[in-house]
Amino acid sequence: MAVNVVESKEWYLAGYAAEGVPTTDHLTLRSVPLSLSLDSIPDAYVAVQLLFISVDPYLRTRMSGQEDGLYFPQFSLNQVITAFGVGRVMRSKDEKYSEGDIVLNAFFPVAEYCVVPSSVLIRKIDPEAGIPLPEYLSCLGVPGFAAWVGIEVLGEAKPGSNAFISAAAGGVGMVAGQLAKLKGCRVIGSTGSDAKVRLVKEEFGYDDAFNYNKEVDFDATLSKYFPNGIDIYLENVGGKMLEAVLNHVNPHARIPVCGMISQYNQIWTEREGVRNLLNIVGKEVRMEGFLVGSYLDRFADFTVEMEGYLKQGKISSKIKIYEGIQNFAESLGSLFSSSNFGKVVIEVNKPR
Amino acid sequence: MAVNVVESKEWYLAGYAAEGVPTTDHLTLRSVPLSLSLDSIPDAYVAVQLLFISVDPYLRTRMSGQEDGLYFPQFSLNQVITAFGVGRVMRSKDEKYSEGDIVLNAFFPVAEYCVVPSSVLIRKIDPEAGIPLPEYLSCLGVPGFAAWVGIEVLGEAKPGSNAFISAAAGGVGMVAGQLAKLKGCRVIGSTGSDAKVRLVKEEFGYDDAFNYNKEVDFDATLSKYFPNGIDIYLENVGGKMLEAVLNHVNPHARIPVCGMISQYNQIWTEREGVRNLLNIVGKEVRMEGFLVGSYLDRFADFTVEMEGYLKQGKISSKIKIYEGIQNFAESLGSLFSSSNFGKVVIEVNKPR
Repeated sequence: MAVNVVESKEWYLAGYAAEGVPTTDHLTLRSVPLSLSLDSIPDAYVAVQLLFISVDPYLRTRMSGQEDGLYFPQFSLNQVITAFGVGRVMRSKDEKYSEGDIVLNAFFPVAEYCVVPSSVLIRKIDPEAGIPLPEYLSCLGVPGFAAWVGIEVLGEAKPGSNAFISAAAGGVGMVAGQLAKLKGCRVIGSTGSDAKVRLVKEEFGYDDAFNYNKEVDFDATLSKYFPNGIDIYLENVGGKMLEAVLNHVNPHARIPVCGMISQYNQIWTEREGVRNLLNIVGKEVRMEGFLVGSYLDRFADFTVEMEGYLKQGKISSKIKIYEGIQNFAESLGSLFSSSNFGKVVIEVNKPR
Repeated sequence: MAVNVVESKEWYLAGYAAEGVPTTDHLTLRSVPLSLSLDSIPDAYVAVQLLFISVDPYLRTRMSGQEDGLYFPQFSLNQVITAFGVGRVMRSKDEKYSEGDIVLNAFFPVAEYCVVPSSVLIRKIDPEAGIPLPEYLSCLGVPGFAAWVGIEVLGEAKPGSNAFISAAAGGVGMVAGQLAKLKGCRVIGSTGSDAKVRLVKEEFGYDDAFNYNKEVDFDATLSKYFPNGIDIYLENVGGKMLEAVLNHVNPHARIPVCGMISQYNQIWTEREGVRNLLNIVGKEVRMEGFLVGSYLDRFADFTVEMEGYLKQGKISSKIKIYEGIQNFAESLGSLFSSSNFGKVVIEVNKPR
C-alpha cells in the first residue's frame, strides 16, 4: 500500500542576511507532514519526490531582504526556499503526468517531497537517454544554457577570439570554457585555487588558467595571459577583475554579464566601484547583462547542440554532489568560498 | 595678384595636462609663415583657408600625455592640434578640387591656413544648399552623427520609450534629445545651469530637464523625473550620474556610451567608481561604447535624414561661435565648465 503521509524536511528562510554568506542563522531546516493521498491532491497538481536540487549563486541574492542588482524577488520570511530541480512524480491529478515520470521544475521547494501545480513543470526527462540526471541541472540546465547564451549568442565566439572566463571552474564557467574551445577560441580561465587551475586545464581543456588568490596585480596578470588582448570576457565575478579586464579589451570586445558573484554578499554602496568604464568608449565594448529566461526561444537549439556534445564526449562536467537535503546551507556557502568545484547539486533522494 | 606667403597662426601643444582643464600653459599660439605659391605645393595637395573649426571634448583626451579610455593617440609635444573643420580651397594640385571649393576634414590643423594632402578631405560642401556652414560641424557633423548613432542605431528609440540625455545642451545632447522626440520618446535632459534647462525645454522640445548642479541626490532626482524608469540613457557624462541611472533602468534598457566628460580631467585611478554594475544583469541592460568612425557605412543615411529635418525645421541647433582662432584654448575650456551652450565652433576666417 502506498504511503499516504510523509515527513518532509524542507529549508525555509528564518532571517535575512544583508551581508556575508547566509548561515543556519538565516536558513533553517524543519520537518513537516505532507499528505500524499490522492484525495488530498487538487486537480491539475502532482505530488513529487525530489531527487536532485540545483544550488546556484543567484539564490543568495533572494535572501538579503533588499532588492538587489539581480532583481529576483526576495524570499519571504518563513517561506520555503525554491530552486531548480529534478523530481519523480509519485501521484498525479494531471493526465499528462504519471507515477514514475521524471520532471524538471525551476522553482521546486528545497524539500524532500512536495505537491505542486503541474503547470510549473518544465518538461519530462527520458531516463533512458543515457544522460545522468544531475547533468540536467548542469550542462543541460541553467548553468549550461547561461554559458551557451554568453559564449555563442552574446559573446559571438569565433575561431581565434581570445576568451577570458571568470569563475572558470564553476557551474557556468566550466561549460563556457569548453564551448569557447569548441568554437576555436583561445581560452584562459580565472579561478580560486591551484587545484581548480589544474582541473580547468586538464579536464576542461582551457589553454591556461590562473589562481586569482595568488595574483596581486590583476592588470599585470592579464598582460601576461592576454598579450593580444581580450575579445570576450564572460563576466561572473565583477569588481576588481572587471576593472582589470577593461584595461585589456580589444576593439569591439564583448562582455556578456552573467553574474557578479564577488558582489552578492555586500550592500551595493559598500562595493568597490569600477573606475575605468570610459574604456568601453574608445574600444567600443559591448557589455550586456542577461538572464537565461529571456532566451527560452533558443532553449531547443541549445538542448540539441549540448546533447550532441555530451553524447560525443566533447563536453564534460564536474558535479559536486552533496548527499541529503540537510546539506543545503553548507552547499550554498561553498559557492562563495574557493572550495567549490564545478556544479553544486544536492541529491535529496536516490533515483530508483 | 594672389598672396604667396601668409602668416598663419596655429595652436600647438606646449605641455601635457595630466589632470584638470588644459590652459595656455599647455596650449600655445604661434605664427608661422606658410607659402601658398603653387610651385611650393606638392602634387595631390591643396592649400586651404580654414573657416570653421569644431571644438569637441574628445580633443582634451589627446592632451594628457597618457593613453586614456578614448584611446585617441596623444598629440606630440610641439605638434599642431588637429580638429574637424570646414575650409576653403585656395590652391589645388588635385584636379578634383578647385579654388573656392568648400571642404570638410576631420583632422585640419587648428590654424588659419594649411597645406594638406587632398586625400584627407572628406567631401565638398555645396554652399548653395541653404545650410549655414557651421551646421556641417554640428547637426550634420560629428556631434549630430554621434547623436543619431546613439539614439537611432544603438538606443533603438521607439514611441513611448523613456529617454534620458546627459549633457543635454551640449553638441551631441541637443541633437540627441530632438531625435528622440521625433521618434516619439519621452525625453528628459540633464544639464549644468538653469539657463540651459530652459534652452533644452524651450528650443529643443525636451519634455523636462534639470540642472544637475542643483541636485543633491541624483537617485531621488531620477525617481522624480522617471517614475516609469529609463529605457534609453545616452551616456556623455559617466561617474555618479551613470551610477544613479543604473538604479532606474528598465528591463532591456540601452545605454549607448558616447563619452564621459566628467572623467576626462582626471587620472582613471582617481575617478569615482561605479558600484552598482550588477544591476545590468537583472535588468539585462546593454551598455555599448561607440566611436562614430565605426558607423561610416551609415553616414549617407544619416545625412539624408538630418538634412531633411533641418530643411523642414524639425531640428534646430544652437551654435556658440568664438570669433578668431586666438580663442581656441578658451573655447576648449568652456566645454568643461557649465557655461557652454550647444555646439562650440571657432570662426577662423569669415566665409566670403
